[in-house]
Amino acid sequence: MRFRLRPSDNSFYEFFSRAAQNLVTGTELLAELILPGADIQAISERLVEVEHDSDAITHDLYQKINSTFIAPFDREDIYRLGSNLDDVMDHLEAVGSLVYLYGLTKMPALPREMHEMVDVLDRQARVTADAMPRLKGLKDLEDYWVECNRLENEGDRAYRMLLVRLFSGEYDALTVLKMKEVVEELELACDSFERVANTVETIAVKES
Amino acid sequence: MRFRLRPSDNSFYEFFSRAAQNLVTGTELLAELILPGADIQAISERLVEVEHDSDAITHDLYQKINSTFIAPFDREDIYRLGSNLDDVMDHLEAVGSLVYLYGLTKMPALPREMHEMVDVLDRQARVTADAMPRLKGLKDLEDYWVECNRLENEGDRAYRMLLVRLFSGEYDALTVLKMKEVVEELELACDSFERVANTVETIAVKES
Amino acid sequence: MRFRLRPSDNSFYEFFSRAAQNLVTGTELLAELILPGADIQAISERLVEVEHDSDAITHDLYQKINSTFIAPFDREDIYRLGSNLDDVMDHLEAVGSLVYLYGLTKMPALPREMHEMVDVLDRQARVTADAMPRLKGLKDLEDYWVECNRLENEGDRAYRMLLVRLFSGEYDALTVLKMKEVVEELELACDSFERVANTVETIAVKES
Repeated sequence: MRFRLRPSDNSFYEFFSRAAQNLVTGTELLAELILPGADIQAISERLVEVEHDSDAITHDLYQKINSTFIAPFDREDIYRLGSNLDDVMDHLEAVGSLVYLYGLTKMPALPREMHEMVDVLDRQARVTADAMPRLKGLKDLEDYWVECNRLENEGDRAYRMLLVRLFSGEYDALTVLKMKEVVEELELACDSFERVANTVETIAVKES
Repeated sequence: MRFRLRPSDNSFYEFFSRAAQNLVTGTELLAELILPGADIQAISERLVEVEHDSDAITHDLYQKINSTFIAPFDREDIYRLGSNLDDVMDHLEAVGSLVYLYGLTKMPALPREMHEMVDVLDRQARVTADAMPRLKGLKDLEDYWVECNRLENEGDRAYRMLLVRLFSGEYDALTVLKMKEVVEELELACDSFERVANTVETIAVKES
Repeated sequence: MRFRLRPSDNSFYEFFSRAAQNLVTGTELLAELILPGADIQAISERLVEVEHDSDAITHDLYQKINSTFIAPFDREDIYRLGSNLDDVMDHLEAVGSLVYLYGLTKMPALPREMHEMVDVLDRQARVTADAMPRLKGLKDLEDYWVECNRLENEGDRAYRMLLVRLFSGEYDALTVLKMKEVVEELELACDSFERVANTVETIAVKES
């Protein structure tokens, strides 16, 4: 549509790849966290560190935008994508902190649907990390956003069935409330991955 | 302000009109859903179908943007409006699914304030469907967004009073939690209609 | 980056300063509201009035944008900043209404973490009100957004610890649910202040 001379500055793509790779680390930690007998305190502390790494990457990206004359695509889209990736990590870290703070580890086993949601997040992290290097060239990205949205629908179904189980009478009201806070953060993480995909789609459409 | 040559491509307006018309179908189904003795399963399945229709309309709209050189207004605004309309339907469908999944139909009667919220949604759907054809020409739209925002305030008041009733001690804690999930979706639907109106306002202001 | 001739129209800055000053009034009312023996009804009514003042300021700002040829910065950013400031007030007002509607005043004393959250909001309001006049010239704003984001993190920690206390078994389930609605509005207010800061940052970066 519009013609623009865009010098290729690879460092922008590297920020996005590093941020997405960090999300894979985050979802791997979540997968450990929900295993029986996990060291919740150690894992939730690792999640806090990984979240700080994300903050640092986002901060460096913003510095880079501010100090660069010509960006590979719209400045606002770069901001948005950086902030979308950062949002995912905030929710992943929140899961760890809440499981630790609420002492949910005393439960015999977490519901199956919670494992399903963490699995969805892990797959979203992996397709996102795979897609980021393809931002350069803006090619072959449609499969990514279609899959990421499909996974969000899958996560949404697991979330609904998890609420049904929580409200079934199997748990007391306070346990339900604590679990609900945790699964809401899982659901928000799942949504945030979809928002990353939507921003990538917007960029691809605009720049094509 | 800015002068732009905009060829009139009516198909964009038709997408928005069809999407909004679909929301009227959605709120009509909600009105049936909350009647005593309603066939919850059948109605929630109809809502899923109507939601799929919305997805198809949104998808066609996005295809259309991608394959069109000149759009009647900013591409991003077309995206946003399409996605806003789609969001409303997601919340309408969620209401049906949750009422069905939580087995809320066993309650003797739903609270009056819930009927009020559904009524607000129905009126928001109707004013939205009436306004969409007027996007062409961008005329006489102010009444629409003012009314849609006014209805959102009305819905917000009903939502607050509904929570007061839920927390009054009339229901047990688990029933409160289930009902709260449902009324939150009603409230989100109401907000989403307001966001549709805000996007229309933004477009009208920009293009005028 | 882009060169634009921007006549300095001070009235835009005055809208933002008035809106932010109004938020200081709002957080001061919240601080009164949570004191033991406070006249909850009177204070929540004052909050409704202050919220109406915010609505009027936002409305005047929008009228001003619509009737002005040249704005000091991007129209959309002016809209967003006005609407961000308005969002904060909506949440402050909601706190007052919910405390009143749920009859939470019958509790012997509110948890310490709730006082901390209100204190954070009060400091966010003050740094925001201090920063708004500096929008003209777009100078010395970085300290503001850094501090406002830091305060949001502080508020977030207080929010988490407040939930831990609410779920500790100290309160019955319905009281927990009521309190949770209130503290969620506090948390949303805290987030909204951060969004104001983010919009200011976006404007400063774009226009520099």
